[in-house]
Amino acid sequence: MNGAESLVHTLLQAGIDTVFANPGTSEMHFVAALDRIPGMRCVLCLDETVVTGAADAYYRMTGKPAATLLHCGPGLANGVANLHNARRARSGVVNIVGDQATYHRPLDAPLTSNVEGIARPVSAFVRRTESAASVGADVAATVAAARRFPGQIATLILPADTAWEEGGVIAQTSAPVAPETAAQTTIEAAAALLRNGRPTLLLLGGAALGEVPMRAAWSIARHCGAKLRLERSPARLARGRGRVQAERIPYPIDQGFAVFAGTEQVILINATPPVSFFAYPGKRGVLTPEGCEIFVLSTPEQDATAALAALAQRLGAPDLPPADPGPRPDAPQGAITPEGVAQSLAALMPEQAIIIDEAISYGRGFFPGTHAAPPHDWLMLVGGAIGEGIPLAVGAAIGAPGRRVIALQGDGSAMYSLAGLWTQARERLDVTTIILANRKYAILVGELAGVGANPGRTALDMMDLSNPVLDWCQLAGGMGVPAARAASLDALNVALAASVARPGPFLIELLV
Amino acid sequence: MNGAESLVHTLLQAGIDTVFANPGTSEMHFVAALDRIPGMRCVLCLDETVVTGAADAYYRMTGKPAATLLHCGPGLANGVANLHNARRARSGVVNIVGDQATYHRPLDAPLTSNVEGIARPVSAFVRRTESAASVGADVAATVAAARRFPGQIATLILPADTAWEEGGVIAQTSAPVAPETAAQTTIEAAAALLRNGRPTLLLLGGAALGEVPMRAAWSIARHCGAKLRLERSPARLARGRGRVQAERIPYPIDQGFAVFAGTEQVILINATPPVSFFAYPGKRGVLTPEGCEIFVLSTPEQDATAALAALAQRLGAPDLPPADPGPRPDAPQGAITPEGVAQSLAALMPEQAIIIDEAISYGRGFFPGTHAAPPHDWLMLVGGAIGEGIPLAVGAAIGAPGRRVIALQGDGSAMYSLAGLWTQARERLDVTTIILANRKYAILVGELAGVGANPGRTALDMMDLSNPVLDWCQLAGGMGVPAARAASLDALNVALAASVARPGPFLIELLV
Repeated sequence: MNGAESLVHTLLQAGIDTVFANPGTSEMHFVAALDRIPGMRCVLCLDETVVTGAADAYYRMTGKPAATLLHCGPGLANGVANLHNARRARSGVVNIVGDQATYHRPLDAPLTSNVEGIARPVSAFVRRTESAASVGADVAATVAAARRFPGQIATLILPADTAWEEGGVIAQTSAPVAPETAAQTTIEAAAALLRNGRPTLLLLGGAALGEVPMRAAWSIARHCGAKLRLERSPARLARGRGRVQAERIPYPIDQGFAVFAGTEQVILINATPPVSFFAYPGKRGVLTPEGCEIFVLSTPEQDATAALAALAQRLGAPDLPPADPGPRPDAPQGAITPEGVAQSLAALMPEQAIIIDEAISYGRGFFPGTHAAPPHDWLMLVGGAIGEGIPLAVGAAIGAPGRRVIALQGDGSAMYSLAGLWTQARERLDVTTIILANRKYAILVGELAGVGANPGRTALDMMDLSNPVLDWCQLAGGMGVPAARAASLDALNVALAASVARPGPFLIELLV
Repeated sequence: MNGAESLVHTLLQAGIDTVFANPGTSEMHFVAALDRIPGMRCVLCLDETVVTGAADAYYRMTGKPAATLLHCGPGLANGVANLHNARRARSGVVNIVGDQATYHRPLDAPLTSNVEGIARPVSAFVRRTESAASVGADVAATVAAARRFPGQIATLILPADTAWEEGGVIAQTSAPVAPETAAQTTIEAAAALLRNGRPTLLLLGGAALGEVPMRAAWSIARHCGAKLRLERSPARLARGRGRVQAERIPYPIDQGFAVFAGTEQVILINATPPVSFFAYPGKRGVLTPEGCEIFVLSTPEQDATAALAALAQRLGAPDLPPADPGPRPDAPQGAITPEGVAQSLAALMPEQAIIIDEAISYGRGFFPGTHAAPPHDWLMLVGGAIGEGIPLAVGAAIGAPGRRVIALQGDGSAMYSLAGLWTQARERLDVTTIILANRKYAILVGELAGVGANPGRTALDMMDLSNPVLDWCQLAGGMGVPAARAASLDALNVALAASVARPGPFLIELLV
């Protein structure tokens, strides 16, 4: 058995059966091993940013890392932006990065690079394997790191000769370790805060955003008269009819301050302290008022469900069914508005849809209009590095087959990872992409307005995507994804209803 | 004057008047300053890989760095693969990377990242500016580093508050330092080697690949009976009628060994010692035979023209006109072959064309067929990180207006940087892109064959781009670039002749 074969066997033994790949010459023995050993689903992506973004969403939907297959430092680098996003989403990813053979590396051939240096800023774990005999154990250690709750980026560098040499050994991977539960004293302290009569806000993030912990948090909040909010950009949020209705911390800084105005206590449940996305001249970066107490019920690395159940019990808070969101709306008609798009989604998304939200500025109002939709998951861009939406849709569809993925995608952001549409077509993924074609970097137009008055030609040109217009139907068609253009809500309804009713990908260019 | 204004003024004073940009929120003050201060050409790119690849080619054509404008660590990361290529091409690039405000950074907002860590693997110089008052001096130091002969990647990290605060100071940039000339003893030692009667090969690279130094090298080689070869992937090579005809070191390792077989002395002129691109089981990585002497006449950081002139003088080698390449070929007809494509290029390229060669495996035979073309420059992918061709075409066209750029582009490679076509359309650049659509990663099919016999379905699928077929005319059309498909040399000739005769970009999908 060569090193590459021990790698594949060790991954399979650890339950890792999906690899998102963009291979090169130095990974040919890995590819050959995948060929010889059955059981691994290999998903070819034409750009590494698709590879890593797909692995992020795959983890969010399955709770299990995928492997990535990347070619040398530059191939890894192309995937770093979405590894940043995956890191912020606390997704587990097992990166396998091929590299020059151990003895070839000192010759500094053109593709030689500082792979560790490129990996470290986004990886919790980086290892370079030294020989074929060590590959199996190194893979097992990498998998263990990736699985560390709630999930980490773990990167293994695989010199070509460690893959092709004989002497590979399959290694056992340790079972994933269950997350810790908050201490009883912490539960009691939180209960005391919730009973002291001061204005309190429960802020939920990460693993607290599932259906069960959110219901417990909602029951507690109602019982104690506390507010309930969600972190700004959930990695995965259980939503829709029968689930708790709650709003996120808004992106605009002044709206963020407003959420916490008058709050004296914030209890964090797997969330981090609320700060603004960027700094602005003369404004604070911390969103909570001065003097507001921040109390950590559970960290992102702990068990949110157990903490909230214990807290509810301690408080004697009865389990409450979520509020009725009212009737499911009908599909709306007329001109396109953000509220209309949300209503169309609520009316037409199938049960258990997976919504990928990289709508950026256009999508800020999508939440209120979709509470009455059927139960669904909502996945956001957590790290703020735009261009992950199309790859997330790839990974979500592969991680949760049988469920329709609907990707709400800003046009500017989509341009970073277009190639993912090809993988959607190749793998016949059930993805409906709605391009919100406003033909500008709308978020920057807003940000620039905050900077100074009267932007001129140069500045406006830097945010303008209308010269030339991007033709999304042609772009999708060029990748093998059928598409339609919609200039009204009526047209959106027709295209959306048709796309969710048939298998495979579809793209809707929505002229907003 | 705020920090951002001092930045723009300092760049302009240093003669840097072009910025390739993909800005975000943290760069809004820089954008506002570009708006207020005339003189900077701002080129919007929709993906940072286009930004950095364009800056690479701009330097190759102008000898002057462009600035890049990148958004935080992830934006920089998206540009790292082409910064790797630019570093290998020894291009000078001034990266300006916006980041969180100094006081906001400790709050670890979502887009916060280890920007220095991402920059260092590809940068010779990295600095984080600390205050508005230091921006000007830091920019000047960054420019000086980028200009250090033959060119370096220099990265300045600009926290948002250093851009928006008042107190900016315009700084003087020191004049570029001329490269050193080889010592007289080195010249004499090289002359002695060339007279000792042993089989000798002159290997030219970097700055030795201009018209004048190549002619001197050719004269020396003829005078002394030495062989003349070029490095594998020139950053910029002067070619065509009236220029020296020479071949590169071939990519396939066995062909590389063959070039040096029997050679006892290699004299490097601004080239690095010849090694194989990758290692292969049981084969040496150094291409020269054991015992072959490697002598450095001039390093990549030295003046090749001066060294070769001194050597020619020392040897008494008379200046020789390059060999006559024979008549310019007629445009060929019939089925598409690599030789036919080269002949069509030779027949139809205009005077002073700029050829961008990311043809990868398909283009290995393009050189012999194009010696009789009109004088032109040939730019290759130096660092081996595929996906730079479309961005290189952007930067070359902006750096050398009035000259037609013809990009020979593998289809697999093109998928990494498609968005560059949009910038070609927006800026109305005179670029003809020829997509060599073989619908596979052909180079990997060859590499896999070297690994083991009978690749199976899984392995072949990982190299197959035909499911679905990429429709390049739709992809180009979607970005505003007109396109045509060619399935014969006759059709290629028609499309190529038409495209070079009219301004603006055009794309030819060549079904090879």
